[in-house]
Amino acid sequence: MRAEDMPAGPAPDRIASLRAHLPDSQVLDRDALAARDPGWDAGNLNALALVRPGSVAEVIGLVSWCRAHRCAFVPQGGRTGLVGGSITAPDQLICDLGALDTIEEIDPASGIAVVQAGVTLSALQEAAAASGLHPGLDLAARGSATIGGLIATNAGGITAFRTGVMRHRVLGLEAVLPDGRLVDDMTRVLKTSAGYDVKQLLIGAEGTLGIVTRAVIRLDPLPNGRATALLGTTGAAQALDIVRQLRSGSAPLLAAEIMWSGFAAATCAALGLDPAQLPLRSPCLLLVELGAASFEAARSALEDALAALAETEPDLDGIVSASMAQSAQLWRLREDTDVLYRLHPQAPSYDISLPARAFDAYVARLRPALKAIGPAIEPYLFGHLADGNLHIVLNRAGPLQPDVQAAVEAAIYGELRGLGGSFSAEHGIGSKRIAALQRHADPVKLALMAELKRLFDPDNLCNPGKVVA
Amino acid sequence: MRAEDMPAGPAPDRIASLRAHLPDSQVLDRDALAARDPGWDAGNLNALALVRPGSVAEVIGLVSWCRAHRCAFVPQGGRTGLVGGSITAPDQLICDLGALDTIEEIDPASGIAVVQAGVTLSALQEAAAASGLHPGLDLAARGSATIGGLIATNAGGITAFRTGVMRHRVLGLEAVLPDGRLVDDMTRVLKTSAGYDVKQLLIGAEGTLGIVTRAVIRLDPLPNGRATALLGTTGAAQALDIVRQLRSGSAPLLAAEIMWSGFAAATCAALGLDPAQLPLRSPCLLLVELGAASFEAARSALEDALAALAETEPDLDGIVSASMAQSAQLWRLREDTDVLYRLHPQAPSYDISLPARAFDAYVARLRPALKAIGPAIEPYLFGHLADGNLHIVLNRAGPLQPDVQAAVEAAIYGELRGLGGSFSAEHGIGSKRIAALQRHADPVKLALMAELKRLFDPDNLCNPGKVVA
Repeated sequence: MRAEDMPAGPAPDRIASLRAHLPDSQVLDRDALAARDPGWDAGNLNALALVRPGSVAEVIGLVSWCRAHRCAFVPQGGRTGLVGGSITAPDQLICDLGALDTIEEIDPASGIAVVQAGVTLSALQEAAAASGLHPGLDLAARGSATIGGLIATNAGGITAFRTGVMRHRVLGLEAVLPDGRLVDDMTRVLKTSAGYDVKQLLIGAEGTLGIVTRAVIRLDPLPNGRATALLGTTGAAQALDIVRQLRSGSAPLLAAEIMWSGFAAATCAALGLDPAQLPLRSPCLLLVELGAASFEAARSALEDALAALAETEPDLDGIVSASMAQSAQLWRLREDTDVLYRLHPQAPSYDISLPARAFDAYVARLRPALKAIGPAIEPYLFGHLADGNLHIVLNRAGPLQPDVQAAVEAAIYGELRGLGGSFSAEHGIGSKRIAALQRHADPVKLALMAELKRLFDPDNLCNPGKVVA
Repeated sequence: MRAEDMPAGPAPDRIASLRAHLPDSQVLDRDALAARDPGWDAGNLNALALVRPGSVAEVIGLVSWCRAHRCAFVPQGGRTGLVGGSITAPDQLICDLGALDTIEEIDPASGIAVVQAGVTLSALQEAAAASGLHPGLDLAARGSATIGGLIATNAGGITAFRTGVMRHRVLGLEAVLPDGRLVDDMTRVLKTSAGYDVKQLLIGAEGTLGIVTRAVIRLDPLPNGRATALLGTTGAAQALDIVRQLRSGSAPLLAAEIMWSGFAAATCAALGLDPAQLPLRSPCLLLVELGAASFEAARSALEDALAALAETEPDLDGIVSASMAQSAQLWRLREDTDVLYRLHPQAPSYDISLPARAFDAYVARLRPALKAIGPAIEPYLFGHLADGNLHIVLNRAGPLQPDVQAAVEAAIYGELRGLGGSFSAEHGIGSKRIAALQRHADPVKLALMAELKRLFDPDNLCNPGKVVA
């Protein structure tokens, strides 16, 4: 047995071995990690060490070291995941992609960006915007979420209904497999039917089948101006009808976010906005944004569209933002979901999708079902209307008792499969949704997942305990 | 050994066994097949028998029968594939999905269609159009190509630059795996991050990992009117600049097809069009189409856009179609590629993609490279400009001598990987492009493909000899 084949030795020895093996990587031991912000989940930095490789070659080196030492490794991006996909154990290594943060190329003529995995979404958005382009993905965690993490979770967000989810933005991918091989499929084209598209397996696998290191991302033209309106509606059906009409206009609809009034009232109060200025008396609020060549042109298009809507929706209430600053304020009403977690620490949260026309009936059944579990349980409801993605946060500090949690999940997830929906729309499975996946996914799909995990990672070293049971 | 475990017996016995095992399927023996049109490839119907299952249960039954009899099976849709992905051998069974041709549901509010695999693209287009919607995929073989086949080859076509390739249109999928299991992932939502997206492996696998039986397809709003123009340009760069400007306008650009003049002159002559009416003196022709609420509105938007273009492109030559009938004629100029194969029977054809801004330089290198192989070899060049997909047909009857073919492939494919392109953009690998795949794909991707094939189909019964070596 070679020295490197030995199972775990004392931590200081292993740290020294790592540092010797990975000269171009930063290695932080437990003491150094204790002083760091773990991000969304306290368990994110509970590891033997965090390694921040300085190159793709060092990522390969890290995986080789882990295989030789039979040490599990957990890829981490922005640590903004909500389902425990990046949590670690004291005998595991973190592979932090943060140092691979180079935007290698923006090619405006072809509409592509070549980036390393640790680039944040906002950094890519800014670089693309300089050429009048956009990566076609946007979400509230844009400042910390990384491209690698967004690929690993197949992120969705605000613009998915128009520009697709992350899977639809990835043209090329490079990744280190659990056995240390580098798969290089960095095509820069939309069309390639050249054998099994194995990179699709890595997209959405949450780092359990390999570590994404680089990607080619498709960029779309970005309107220079955008104008925002907040409309009060009688429910999701009316909001969806408005969205359908806005989408048939010539100015592109850039966002269609829905909030039920309980959610909007909570964020309105926390932000100190004047509730009288907002259509909070309506059961549902719809935040829409149109794009055009300038703010003024977008605002004019939005006002024309709302005037046309008033003919079929005479009771429509709402405001059109008068400035970019006011638009930003309306967006905070939707995006400052942290408010909920300050009101209800570790509040149980869910992330589902279903055909949007079923929203009203679903919500109408959900409220009494939750009340039957606990008379005071109320859901905060908000989400991305146009792609049928609904977020649900309970007005309860978490975690729930196991029996209550089971009853709540049954109420929230129970009918989704029959509707053609998903119990995990964009947050992924991580470590927290495995039981739900086992319960609600197609059994053959589950069996295939386990077979694929064994094929890619027979020693179960690559982000073990996530996604697959 | 049970009777069913026996290897192949005499053909009539096997046909009788099949008929007994699959009471709701049509079974055509060799004699019946000999009288049928094999479609694009003469080898498509060279089989023990063709089975046309009447239900998904019978597809499972067919696969079970094949496993018990160690008989290979080849899924077939419209038999319009160009790379021999559906060809058969005399000891193989064809699984023809043609009887599974039900459009189960069009849900206009949610923008989805639920279809069986044997539905043709044109049937789905017509059904969706009745609700003002479109499946977001279009190609010349629309009348015969089936949804199952389009999924199996991850088809691209005319609209991909705007609405994505087939992979981007599939929300849900049902398939029979090579071991007879049915994987049911018929979600109806855009956003689902619920474990490995195993259906992505089946998309583009050309029937080698399973048989697609049903799918949920995303539908997009369809403009009522569309207007077409044919413009003469100095090359792909100018055409791409025009496309970029048209895409920044408010009327959606629905198509951006490019033809080099040699191709357009050939189809123009074959169609009996008056060459003096077309901008054939230009090196490149660009066919563009804008959408709007009516033909008149679209035509007006197109004329306005071209007037604006004239300021930056003063020498722009071309015609705007005056009627829908004239539009159809312009489209035939682009789509009647059969002309080439009548001029040059079995002409060698290639289907590549590369970042479109590299088109001119690529073509400028390609012509002399082909001439160096044979002084009279000229390429017909045409394709889908906006997504970088170029079709190349040689002015030669096929097949080429092996050494000439190798030299031609080296000239056409040689630099694509370095450019981030693909040697197979939308036609797939089938049986004819396996050697090219082995030569040009990433070796790790190739190894993973072989591992995946073994995992899904260890007995190599499911469309053997296609895609993987």
